[in-house]
Amino acid sequence: MPTSPRRATLAVVAASAGVSVATVSKVLNGRSDVAPATRSLVQSLLRQHQYVAPSPRHAAGARPATIEVQFDADLNAYSTEIIQGAVEAGAEAGVAVVVSIRPGAEHTSARVLDLVSAGRRALIAVTSELTSGQLGVLSRARLPLVVIDPLNLPRTSVTSVGSTNFAGGFTATQHLLRLGHRRVAYIGGPATAACSQARLHGYRAAMEAEGAPVLPGYVQSGHFLYQDGLEFGAVVLDLPQAPTAVFAGSDETAFGVMEAARSRGLRVPEDLSIVGFDDTQIATMVSPPLTTVRQPLREMGRAALRTALRLADGEKIDSHHVELATELVVRGSTAPVLPAG
Amino acid sequence: MPTSPRRATLAVVAASAGVSVATVSKVLNGRSDVAPATRSLVQSLLRQHQYVAPSPRHAAGARPATIEVQFDADLNAYSTEIIQGAVEAGAEAGVAVVVSIRPGAEHTSARVLDLVSAGRRALIAVTSELTSGQLGVLSRARLPLVVIDPLNLPRTSVTSVGSTNFAGGFTATQHLLRLGHRRVAYIGGPATAACSQARLHGYRAAMEAEGAPVLPGYVQSGHFLYQDGLEFGAVVLDLPQAPTAVFAGSDETAFGVMEAARSRGLRVPEDLSIVGFDDTQIATMVSPPLTTVRQPLREMGRAALRTALRLADGEKIDSHHVELATELVVRGSTAPVLPAG
Repeated sequence: MPTSPRRATLAVVAASAGVSVATVSKVLNGRSDVAPATRSLVQSLLRQHQYVAPSPRHAAGARPATIEVQFDADLNAYSTEIIQGAVEAGAEAGVAVVVSIRPGAEHTSARVLDLVSAGRRALIAVTSELTSGQLGVLSRARLPLVVIDPLNLPRTSVTSVGSTNFAGGFTATQHLLRLGHRRVAYIGGPATAACSQARLHGYRAAMEAEGAPVLPGYVQSGHFLYQDGLEFGAVVLDLPQAPTAVFAGSDETAFGVMEAARSRGLRVPEDLSIVGFDDTQIATMVSPPLTTVRQPLREMGRAALRTALRLADGEKIDSHHVELATELVVRGSTAPVLPAG
Repeated sequence: MPTSPRRATLAVVAASAGVSVATVSKVLNGRSDVAPATRSLVQSLLRQHQYVAPSPRHAAGARPATIEVQFDADLNAYSTEIIQGAVEAGAEAGVAVVVSIRPGAEHTSARVLDLVSAGRRALIAVTSELTSGQLGVLSRARLPLVVIDPLNLPRTSVTSVGSTNFAGGFTATQHLLRLGHRRVAYIGGPATAACSQARLHGYRAAMEAEGAPVLPGYVQSGHFLYQDGLEFGAVVLDLPQAPTAVFAGSDETAFGVMEAARSRGLRVPEDLSIVGFDDTQIATMVSPPLTTVRQPLREMGRAALRTALRLADGEKIDSHHVELATELVVRGSTAPVLPAG
């Protein structure tokens, strides 16, 4: 096959861009280890020279590979941020992002082979619970996997990206205690989920540090849903010693608590302070805007994509689990406690 | 090339499934005109017989084609619903959905050639404003295009999917009038956007039908954003003859109006009724939950994907523009007008 004119083009492009032919080749192959500015320059020069890709990087076909981001349930505000981050990082690396929605249980061998034959370079699974059988199938197919916000505790066999859930829970609770609240309840996610446990223990640690008692009924477990906030919000607000503040384990749960308060004639934040967890776009759009613990969801999507590409390139990664920092964002749903009436 | 064993497999699969070889072939090619149950059956039989695709449908490579859904700005709750619908319809048709975020202005020839060489069968552009130059590039590259919620008025040269904006605007306003409101303001999107114009005229038509005057300052134009609701909500609420109800051209704008009301000490719905437009997930999570005009965004995503596949298959479509029905969803943000004090 006459590849020499193509190689000549690569050499010209490399010279014009002031980089090596190897770097041009990396850009053509969608490798992640090229600076974005260099990539843009090389791509624009390739276009100027009307470069036509000679042969595929992967045996099967000539098309650029894709990375699949897979959710195990319908998309929501949380998913939106993850997709945004993955798409941004994908665009920088020259890799397209396919979005799919499948129950975690669906990782049969056939499905994984479909992914491989469809040219996926890696799979990013979001909040899915994967069995060791499923992990085995992925591993045998040599399809790199990165899990975002794993439900199980991080295992060395699975690469994952999360956020500092314990610190987030601590900071949220401490914020309420510093506003003078002593009666602070927590409405979290499943007791079995690693992230939920970490947030709960952050809450407990902050309460203990201030000597504020966790009264009976003050800890409730749902599934991070709006409905949980509505239901368990009602439960805690109807307690004989009702809390003056609620820390909710997700923004959605916090919105449910807001509605439970409103339907009881309680004003937020005057009668009840509420802190959420996630900082999705909705947090800025409710009234009052929600004080919440920001999970860097976009950055988690970006980090997952970059890590997946490195795994696909056969690179060594520093750690099988990375946690990005959470941050308290104070808005209108929290206020100093009213003097006891 | 020895294709006969493969053809034999196709015949066996067709016989086992009780369908024609042509149908099996359609499934392999990701065609949209196969019933989902038939598709599943055929796919599972193909796997059982360890069928390996002999040659690509499209000249360049062996990988299944993808459809790209392209947004012109950061993803939000509206985008989430569109993606969900497109991914669902894509899964049914055996086509993967790539999500990208690019300014509409970026439709250069090079970008379109990238899409073609990446194996995209079609492009779905969401709320983008495309110039005729850009449309020409897409058309010359034979890359089918479907626009969702086009900003320009529907043109015969562009296939598009929208919703019944005029009817939606009419119904929203009529709902407020039937609750006894006469002073109803409208805070919409850009005067140049087709969907915004249609909603405004629906509002005007309903007001006129009831003989309710559109007072000076009662019509405001933003960009469908939260910030517009906050800002223009303040403008209308501070008018000498302030409205008792606001129809907002998007849910996000409605949330901004809610906050403008709350910051003025006005209760929703007791002091101010608010209707939105979209019915994204957020509408159910604000407090009170938002009465809004439901745009069938998921169904619009599904319809766009199916239409794009039909165009890619070279089929004739019935109409260059389809509008799906909107529907009023009554929740807690609207109530009968208080007797004038």
